[in-house]
Amino acid sequence: MLFAIIMAGGSGTRFWPKSRRNRPKQLLNLHGDSTMLQQTVARIAPLVPAERVFIITGADQAEATREQLPQLPAANVIAEPCPRDTAPCVGLAAEIVAAQDPDGSMIVMPADHVIEPADVFLRTVKAAVAVIDADPSALVTFGIKPTRPETGYGYIQRGELIETRDGVAVNRVVQFREKPDRDTAEQFLASGTFAWNSGIFLWRARTILQEINRHKPLLGAALHRVGEAWGTAAGPDVLAAEFPEMERTPIDKAVMEKAANVKVLEVVYDWNDVGDWRALRALLPADAQGNSVRGDVIAQDTKNSLLISDDGGLIAAIGLDDVVVVQSGKATLVARRDQLDKLKALVESLNDRGYGSYL
Amino acid sequence: MLFAIIMAGGSGTRFWPKSRRNRPKQLLNLHGDSTMLQQTVARIAPLVPAERVFIITGADQAEATREQLPQLPAANVIAEPCPRDTAPCVGLAAEIVAAQDPDGSMIVMPADHVIEPADVFLRTVKAAVAVIDADPSALVTFGIKPTRPETGYGYIQRGELIETRDGVAVNRVVQFREKPDRDTAEQFLASGTFAWNSGIFLWRARTILQEINRHKPLLGAALHRVGEAWGTAAGPDVLAAEFPEMERTPIDKAVMEKAANVKVLEVVYDWNDVGDWRALRALLPADAQGNSVRGDVIAQDTKNSLLISDDGGLIAAIGLDDVVVVQSGKATLVARRDQLDKLKALVESLNDRGYGSYL
Repeated sequence: MLFAIIMAGGSGTRFWPKSRRNRPKQLLNLHGDSTMLQQTVARIAPLVPAERVFIITGADQAEATREQLPQLPAANVIAEPCPRDTAPCVGLAAEIVAAQDPDGSMIVMPADHVIEPADVFLRTVKAAVAVIDADPSALVTFGIKPTRPETGYGYIQRGELIETRDGVAVNRVVQFREKPDRDTAEQFLASGTFAWNSGIFLWRARTILQEINRHKPLLGAALHRVGEAWGTAAGPDVLAAEFPEMERTPIDKAVMEKAANVKVLEVVYDWNDVGDWRALRALLPADAQGNSVRGDVIAQDTKNSLLISDDGGLIAAIGLDDVVVVQSGKATLVARRDQLDKLKALVESLNDRGYGSYL
Repeated sequence: MLFAIIMAGGSGTRFWPKSRRNRPKQLLNLHGDSTMLQQTVARIAPLVPAERVFIITGADQAEATREQLPQLPAANVIAEPCPRDTAPCVGLAAEIVAAQDPDGSMIVMPADHVIEPADVFLRTVKAAVAVIDADPSALVTFGIKPTRPETGYGYIQRGELIETRDGVAVNRVVQFREKPDRDTAEQFLASGTFAWNSGIFLWRARTILQEINRHKPLLGAALHRVGEAWGTAAGPDVLAAEFPEMERTPIDKAVMEKAANVKVLEVVYDWNDVGDWRALRALLPADAQGNSVRGDVIAQDTKNSLLISDDGGLIAAIGLDDVVVVQSGKATLVARRDQLDKLKALVESLNDRGYGSYL
């Protein structure tokens, strides 16, 4: 059986002021008619029923997450006691899946990516399932064909072509590479053999647990103790005791870089991690002046701007070019688009500036 | 006795969104620690006690006006039944003054100008009082030495010097001129004989009523009927019946341009009518980056900008130059400073755009 594990953490500073501490990006309706989390669950729904969908999120966000997904059993929204990066998160999910189905497979997905069209995504997932049905010890990762020398993503180098399944190329993995510098990213792009690491993985729960045990035995043992207690009265206490002690490490580094049998699918759907307001603007429809607008907005002699009014206020813009204006709650961001990379540091400074209530 | 008449009407579109229909410019605290109306009353207070200060305002604004001026008798705040420009307003005030003191003088002042320093202003007022004490039939107007070829003001051409009183030059008036075009304004500035018409006048109530009767006899008769009823039970009804029928005309055009004995004082205090956000920014202190800031504001890599957060919200600006951001109530203005002349039309369009609630 296939299970879906949706990783829904994140502080969401890059979408401030719409995103806040207890309302990170995946809980927002940035694009379309539902939130990114809801879109992620809906996208996989044709292959995975709600009972087999698990959301791993932070304690601050568990309640809002359950509210957005009433079709899921409440227990399927799991709050991590504290952030421990993706290896403990994935391992915990694998324990839960393995307990329900020792041969169960799981797809691991971030909650905050835009993926379209859904049918191409589902076809790719089916191909990945077929790959591990034929080779249960394989770890499958979904690679994105890069379109620019992006320095903000991890990369995966493809090796030999193993097979083409349902039109999807399946290659061996030569290496995983962390976020490169600009020159290296240019080389990766030029080589044609590198894919972006989209953070979507598919494997048997048993396989990933074996790999964690092999490469991170202490983590594997701790996960096993949590798995043993899961579903019993002691479950929450064991999780609360064990989780904070687990090694804080990403699954890519803890396992994927070291595992012997890793296969990469080069996906053909459109993918966008919507990393900031700039990326969102590129996704939204624009009017003849290049403005993307949401809510009550007047754009007078204004072009190439993103103007978002949440909560029913009015934004009146006059004479702007390439500016992002977002009004949400009691906070307003006004930024030149080419300087949005400063937003993260600004939001992180709010507490020290005495504006912690806006986080 | 000297009375003070403060004209406090105005729709205040140029300070939207801080100014609204029932909260026009003079009721705002734009500059300093009190509103412009309060500053205007305080400025004249050393010469005119509260009982002799009258505020003429609109029906929408009378209540807020009384709240801001608790030291005034409530009856001294007079609501015009409808806007009729300054001639009926000034005439009504003159009737009220003449009824209390047949020899009374009155200074007429707009409520929304910045005048500093106060002692120089008071010295100028005393000089004007001395002028009409010596020549009770004179109409005195306060002229401002122009500093630029402004096309938004009326001008007064000075004739021969009559006298210098308390250091203030008193000249005959050759002509009043409406707002000129740019070329004409340049000529006025170059000539050295033109002053800006600041809208401050000083005269005996009896004199201005005589002049109104001479040049606008129908208006004079209507004013007289209101004056006769003023202070009786019938007063409000007579005002409500007569006022809307009065000719809608400014006092400059109705009387000043035609009167024989008009004298102009060239004032030496600093004067600013704070016509829009741009003018306000020039008045406010600026930091080393040229930003003028009020309320909770973060200005990151931002310069030469006016950033105002009312009502306790937060504005975060990144990478702006020469931009005005004003957040007030549920509305936010974001405008390039050099395009603020488009604000008035934008505000006037709010109703048609379905945003009448933001007026």
